[in-house]
Amino acid sequence: MNTFGRIFRISIFGESHGALIGVTIDGVPPGISLSESDLLPDLARRRSGARGTTPRKESDAPRLVSGVFEGRTTGAPLTVVFENENTQSADYKNLTAHPRPGHADWVAQQKFGGFNDPRGGGHFSGRITLGLVAAGAVAKKILQGVDIQAVIKEIGGCSDPAQFDSVVEAAMAARDSVGGVVECTVTGLPAGLGEPFFDSAESLIAHAVFAIPAVKGIEFGAGFAAARMRGSENNDPIVDPSGRTATNHAGGINGGITNGNPLTFRVSVKPTPSIAAAQQTLDTATGRLETLEIRGRHDACIALRAGVVVEAAAAVVLADLSMLRAAEIKSWK
Amino acid sequence: MNTFGRIFRISIFGESHGALIGVTIDGVPPGISLSESDLLPDLARRRSGARGTTPRKESDAPRLVSGVFEGRTTGAPLTVVFENENTQSADYKNLTAHPRPGHADWVAQQKFGGFNDPRGGGHFSGRITLGLVAAGAVAKKILQGVDIQAVIKEIGGCSDPAQFDSVVEAAMAARDSVGGVVECTVTGLPAGLGEPFFDSAESLIAHAVFAIPAVKGIEFGAGFAAARMRGSENNDPIVDPSGRTATNHAGGINGGITNGNPLTFRVSVKPTPSIAAAQQTLDTATGRLETLEIRGRHDACIALRAGVVVEAAAAVVLADLSMLRAAEIKSWK
Amino acid sequence: MNTFGRIFRISIFGESHGALIGVTIDGVPPGISLSESDLLPDLARRRSGARGTTPRKESDAPRLVSGVFEGRTTGAPLTVVFENENTQSADYKNLTAHPRPGHADWVAQQKFGGFNDPRGGGHFSGRITLGLVAAGAVAKKILQGVDIQAVIKEIGGCSDPAQFDSVVEAAMAARDSVGGVVECTVTGLPAGLGEPFFDSAESLIAHAVFAIPAVKGIEFGAGFAAARMRGSENNDPIVDPSGRTATNHAGGINGGITNGNPLTFRVSVKPTPSIAAAQQTLDTATGRLETLEIRGRHDACIALRAGVVVEAAAAVVLADLSMLRAAEIKSWK
Amino acid sequence: MNTFGRIFRISIFGESHGALIGVTIDGVPPGISLSESDLLPDLARRRSGARGTTPRKESDAPRLVSGVFEGRTTGAPLTVVFENENTQSADYKNLTAHPRPGHADWVAQQKFGGFNDPRGGGHFSGRITLGLVAAGAVAKKILQGVDIQAVIKEIGGCSDPAQFDSVVEAAMAARDSVGGVVECTVTGLPAGLGEPFFDSAESLIAHAVFAIPAVKGIEFGAGFAAARMRGSENNDPIVDPSGRTATNHAGGINGGITNGNPLTFRVSVKPTPSIAAAQQTLDTATGRLETLEIRGRHDACIALRAGVVVEAAAAVVLADLSMLRAAEIKSWK
Repeated sequence: MNTFGRIFRISIFGESHGALIGVTIDGVPPGISLSESDLLPDLARRRSGARGTTPRKESDAPRLVSGVFEGRTTGAPLTVVFENENTQSADYKNLTAHPRPGHADWVAQQKFGGFNDPRGGGHFSGRITLGLVAAGAVAKKILQGVDIQAVIKEIGGCSDPAQFDSVVEAAMAARDSVGGVVECTVTGLPAGLGEPFFDSAESLIAHAVFAIPAVKGIEFGAGFAAARMRGSENNDPIVDPSGRTATNHAGGINGGITNGNPLTFRVSVKPTPSIAAAQQTLDTATGRLETLEIRGRHDACIALRAGVVVEAAAAVVLADLSMLRAAEIKSWK
Repeated sequence: MNTFGRIFRISIFGESHGALIGVTIDGVPPGISLSESDLLPDLARRRSGARGTTPRKESDAPRLVSGVFEGRTTGAPLTVVFENENTQSADYKNLTAHPRPGHADWVAQQKFGGFNDPRGGGHFSGRITLGLVAAGAVAKKILQGVDIQAVIKEIGGCSDPAQFDSVVEAAMAARDSVGGVVECTVTGLPAGLGEPFFDSAESLIAHAVFAIPAVKGIEFGAGFAAARMRGSENNDPIVDPSGRTATNHAGGINGGITNGNPLTFRVSVKPTPSIAAAQQTLDTATGRLETLEIRGRHDACIALRAGVVVEAAAAVVLADLSMLRAAEIKSWK
Repeated sequence: MNTFGRIFRISIFGESHGALIGVTIDGVPPGISLSESDLLPDLARRRSGARGTTPRKESDAPRLVSGVFEGRTTGAPLTVVFENENTQSADYKNLTAHPRPGHADWVAQQKFGGFNDPRGGGHFSGRITLGLVAAGAVAKKILQGVDIQAVIKEIGGCSDPAQFDSVVEAAMAARDSVGGVVECTVTGLPAGLGEPFFDSAESLIAHAVFAIPAVKGIEFGAGFAAARMRGSENNDPIVDPSGRTATNHAGGINGGITNGNPLTFRVSVKPTPSIAAAQQTLDTATGRLETLEIRGRHDACIALRAGVVVEAAAAVVLADLSMLRAAEIKSWK
Repeated sequence: MNTFGRIFRISIFGESHGALIGVTIDGVPPGISLSESDLLPDLARRRSGARGTTPRKESDAPRLVSGVFEGRTTGAPLTVVFENENTQSADYKNLTAHPRPGHADWVAQQKFGGFNDPRGGGHFSGRITLGLVAAGAVAKKILQGVDIQAVIKEIGGCSDPAQFDSVVEAAMAARDSVGGVVECTVTGLPAGLGEPFFDSAESLIAHAVFAIPAVKGIEFGAGFAAARMRGSENNDPIVDPSGRTATNHAGGINGGITNGNPLTFRVSVKPTPSIAAAQQTLDTATGRLETLEIRGRHDACIALRAGVVVEAAAAVVLADLSMLRAAEIKSWK
């Protein structure tokens, strides 16, 4: 449901236009230096502002309301809240009757019997990832010596970063949107993270990453390309006692367990479903097909903001696995 | 770890060459007609035998040892066990010293401090999926009116089924192996399965699927292709009050929740890492690089056997979500 | 940790003198009429004010910050927060050095390496039960037709309610405190709640009740008296097809499962450890024994306020089991 | 349900007269010396044989079928199975129609829609504790330096061990049964075990102990007597820097966390409900009250066999908390 993790465990709450969005992080080790300013860089990376991102402006100012005392974590649950400030929700009733194609509007009504908060997508809004990014920033502090970096590899099928802006602008000019591919690389991880059978490192990272709205695919290492290789090509020979491999088609994971090489994965982010161009939809009251024009401006390319969210998903998984690994090692060393 | 699911919850145990492999399934509704013969068709699909699959022959005869009385499930935990019969494990010490490239041999030693059972891959063996397939067969019985079908879409990069045999034989002739892509389609699902934020239908299915050895990627609906589409192309317009959409780029899932259209996903299965051709590996005792030749014959294409395992992973997730959904609906209807 | 429950799942956060105390409730069915005023009666019962309770005055005004829209629950996580207003925490450093006997001061330092928030007991404060009481009020709304009533059966060993005040006053006059016994009775439950083997109704209720600070014992039905009975005396004969029994020594639970008779249990609440009388303690800096006089006034009898908290613990368990039961019945009926 | 624990996690299966009873233990540290003979002493303590215990004789021979290789644990799930040998189940249909007072017969039918295995109590049988005792024996091996001892403090209200036999014989002569009180003491524990808010050491131990059939009460330290004390009497003053207290009314737990003093608790075990004397029951087919005489001999005092089961419940909780504690300490030290 809205809780994830075994030792480092996060619980997310909030709706796009509700009073507060937030996250409670349980299992944070005590004594970590932490203030609201530590959360700002990742929150800023997530915030809109770039070309092609939504003009809804929120300060996204985090407020640490529990779990920190005199600048350090206490070991008690750490809660971060964000106030929703810019909530123009006058016209949600129209959306309820006319579900936006590609959005969760229709399933949300089915799921919750019509009682869901429809304003701005409610609990399905990408805005809910604020809490995940905050948790990711805390997780990164736990993962000392580990570096997590997500970069945009493709926008709208184009893999040349110099051309990303023009791809987005062309879509905007057409009152349309584009998707993208985010690649995440984690270095500095020890071998041994991941728990057979069900909690492989891939399983847990994929679980968290698919919670991010708009994600439709994930692949580790060579991923789908591995399906087209021969074994002799795909196998990564170990070349030294540290476990370093000559190639890294496995993306740093064998048998579901990190092998000490860089952990790599790629994520497919679909194009923003909210587009200005006219679309067909159903009038749920009348059962007739109608034309929908979504007003206001939205992200033309949500992938531009997804990198730091993907990093956060990886970080919360890896922090949890690292703490679990510490328990394992302690028990047999 | 080795347990998965919230209401329909499975726990897997066993090692490739140990005494028993099995699964305990908790939360099975009482009164379901069930006998060992109900498990045989899916187990037969998983078993080796086709061209390109391992000659290790196991009867894979399931034994229901708890949870069934007079031919029906009792509501108590249902345990299925399999005896390992064909366990030639004389030469595992050599493998311990010379980790096979692409296998979990090296990470297993790191993970478990050298105490892992190395015979035939131990708990990392694909043989452990016997329990998952058995659980999948039970889950399918719960999912009345739901059809789950996995098919092989590609072998070694070739997408023409008529050519699959020759692709595999060419690899075998080269003492090599090939990977493949499996596509799974689930029809008959209601709208409303999946639990925001973290337990999206994609999150849970991906979690279970990445537990299957050799899986390196998953994509739902248009998947990675969605990242290359525009919103106007990728959005699926709803065309009738049942929620049916004209296209199905979403793969039957919006906002992490099933929308009643066919749920579709594709899985990348890497080539079997065990190949007969000479490979470089590390001698972990001496730290020197050596040449490894893996004796015996192995699956030249594990993807050929993966379909039913992928179906099982989907089935256990969907049975669990369906039971949870029943609780939800009951509580507000 | 700070999360409890499987479907109706609550996560608690906050410290006695921190910014916010609160609870997030996941799995709340959508469509339930709910406003802050619905929470006030139980919160008022928990609040201090009676003779023998602490003079620290907090308005304990709940704020619903997510999960409610237009007066009804949405199905998304429901978060309730409370501001701490009256936080006189000037002298906590003295307490850190001189752990109060019977309190969690010393173990909190051991547990969290000295980084715990020591002010007012931090996360160990009875004040944290605010969130539990709020969750209990929501749970009670879900449990339609079910009545949960806790009453004080003993104070300081006296079982005559007319004498409770004088018992407490005598303790206060002696600068001391007294404990008590709370009895909780739940009527209107169906048969069938509770999950073998580990999640018996007794297991889950005891789990939740022992989370309440100061609780040191629990017994169901005849409880410890049953250990002194013969089987012929303790057995409750069923007298009609509804499962009604002539006696109720089982406290409404057989084999860990509710049997439809009133569910009854009693809870031992120890005397408040904070007393004004001089006590011996350790100076943790010097390792010497010293005399501690705890200033300010505290609850002389915390049991007076415990009833509604015990009800809340029972309610959250029973709401969760009821939702799970709905899933079970749906799956086989 | 039938799984318990977070890192050291056990899953129990089996029915009284089914093929196998067993337990799967996940999260066992690798490298622990373990063979079937290590499990025998505790299993022998649990087995019937003493005066007043059932004449059903089972060898209770454990078989380790996974998770052990060359005499040491591997880190993979460890499964122990027991064959049911002595299964005289001819007359269960009579029991189905005439639920035994004080037994789970009637609720089991309600719970599982009449599909439960009724033979010998099915999954509700005390025989299922075999798996718990096996898991407890493994847990004790993990808890190095910790001693867990349960002793019988009362039988049938008598607290003089020299008289226990005669109390039981008197009950048997009357075709009746008696209950008892078991006290468990754990020494050698470090301070710091237990996880606020919900996973207090008391919460988890009570959770596991109430899973044992026939348990109706638990109290820690002074327990219910604490409710009758004043604070000045109940508070345990710390007398040295190790946290040692002069008294131990807290039973070694403050704020839900172990304080390094002996952890003590007492458990109420009800009299065996199966008695030879005639009892009233309901004929569920006709709805009429009838007289039931339970044939065969049963335990006249199940409390005589409960000690080792209570130890096992405590051991599995403390092993889990110890492993979690290792993760915590590792993360901040």
